Amino acid sequence: MSAAAAGAADSPLAIICGSGTLPFAVADAAIKRGRKVVLFAVRGAADAVRVAGYPHQWGALGQFGRLQRLLREAGCRDVVFIGGLVRPGFWQIRFDLKTLLLMPRIARAFRGGDNHLLSGLARIFEQHGFRLLGAHEVAPEILVPEGVIGSVAMTERDRSDVDAGLAYLRAAGPHDVGQAVVVSGGHVLAVEAIEGTDHMLARVAELRASGRIRAPVGSGVLVKAPKPQQDRRFDLPSIGPQTVEEVARAKLAGIAVVAGETIIAEPQQVIAAADDAGIFVAGVRTGSAR
Amino acid sequence: MSAAAAGAADSPLAIICGSGTLPFAVADAAIKRGRKVVLFAVRGAADAVRVAGYPHQWGALGQFGRLQRLLREAGCRDVVFIGGLVRPGFWQIRFDLKTLLLMPRIARAFRGGDNHLLSGLARIFEQHGFRLLGAHEVAPEILVPEGVIGSVAMTERDRSDVDAGLAYLRAAGPHDVGQAVVVSGGHVLAVEAIEGTDHMLARVAELRASGRIRAPVGSGVLVKAPKPQQDRRFDLPSIGPQTVEEVARAKLAGIAVVAGETIIAEPQQVIAAADDAGIFVAGVRTGSAR
Repeated sequence: MSAAAAGAADSPLAIICGSGTLPFAVADAAIKRGRKVVLFAVRGAADAVRVAGYPHQWGALGQFGRLQRLLREAGCRDVVFIGGLVRPGFWQIRFDLKTLLLMPRIARAFRGGDNHLLSGLARIFEQHGFRLLGAHEVAPEILVPEGVIGSVAMTERDRSDVDAGLAYLRAAGPHDVGQAVVVSGGHVLAVEAIEGTDHMLARVAELRASGRIRAPVGSGVLVKAPKPQQDRRFDLPSIGPQTVEEVARAKLAGIAVVAGETIIAEPQQVIAAADDAGIFVAGVRTGSAR
Repeated sequence: MSAAAAGAADSPLAIICGSGTLPFAVADAAIKRGRKVVLFAVRGAADAVRVAGYPHQWGALGQFGRLQRLLREAGCRDVVFIGGLVRPGFWQIRFDLKTLLLMPRIARAFRGGDNHLLSGLARIFEQHGFRLLGAHEVAPEILVPEGVIGSVAMTERDRSDVDAGLAYLRAAGPHDVGQAVVVSGGHVLAVEAIEGTDHMLARVAELRASGRIRAPVGSGVLVKAPKPQQDRRFDLPSIGPQTVEEVARAKLAGIAVVAGETIIAEPQQVIAAADDAGIFVAGVRTGSAR
């Protein structure tokens, strides 16, 4: 546990809880370490059945004023954001008064790409007396470790593709371009911008089906890495069983992510699905797959 | 006209002729300059009705031996590749003997990404005594000039987006990643890898329709630039009336390409369509849109 997480371990941990299973993995890990948790479940995203198993409050996007009040009432100082959010249309969000007052700053943050947006929101929280922690700071077990985590190994060819992918991501990162790329035989097949990894992998599957990808079936890797200036506290790349499914559908050899800087959801299912599909899953060091 | 093109102007110019109208624009420009031309029309790609208006031969991909013989019979030394080709599946190509003998070198070229493929094929032609010229060397009028070419001007915001797009393309180029990007408000919305500009623009239209793009309708630019190490003789980026249509469908503000390094097909139709849709089309200097 980091010094920051340990320092306020007497106050309950607030988990702003999006979709997927990760929020509960984080909650369980914190509880196992003897920390109380309160889930602030985002309506339309969080899994209501599982949320009910923990102390919780429901809220909606755009209600910073209400959230702030609930956090103080619950005695929370440390806040973790975790889980997926489908970004609603701006005009569909019902902002509360406090949020509206902050709007000029939020709008400024929105203009500068995802990196700026997220660190802008983080600063707003911190200036209101809260401390934003990365989910991995309170639950390091959700991070991908170094090395191959299933039973399928990387070939030399895969390693070169991973290196090429990491090199591209290093070059593109300063331009705030996505966290993922598909490389085969040293050739970049697809780059993720705002469409998301799932959309990019579907494109690779499609290009493969239409014969636009010359690389043989079972070659090529998905490489994910955080952007260089990314705020690692609440925007790490992540993989889960669905990623393995999509990579299998795109007929790639495997998945490489940066060890210690990538969140893995449902690791047992990831390993089972990858072994089943003959796909490798590896945590690598930035700058090299070796 | 370049020195190379002038030096062999006594021999007929061979135009390897893919799809679209560009091959005929190049042929007409060469004829206007007093040069004889022979079209080598690629079956399944070239427009048969228009090909019939010029001295021509038909051939298929993979028939380098036959092509070489026909080029020599026609007395051609200078060769220009122009027009689109749908890349067939490797196993669908019927290679002739000469091509099969060159196969190890072609396969080596195939492995290294598009840049390597094209310069590999260029070297093969040159080692057989032919000279590969860029279409723009024999027909400079097919290049986009500097400045706005329609009646719609760029705003300051568009100029910043163009600069951001050029900066990203400069960073990504050494990794042999596509020639095109869509930027809005300084934010990279989509990056072209092997899917092609049309596919990328369709994706932007889709992301816009599903509300994943927050930028207002009518903002954002398509930026195209050659890769730094690209062989400019036969792989310049190009735009045409279809590009304008796709940019309009993606609800962007306009198109910026590198002046003097981008081919424009059917410029009159491009200008008419762009003016009609309220889209700017501009040739800019690399490194800056100003």
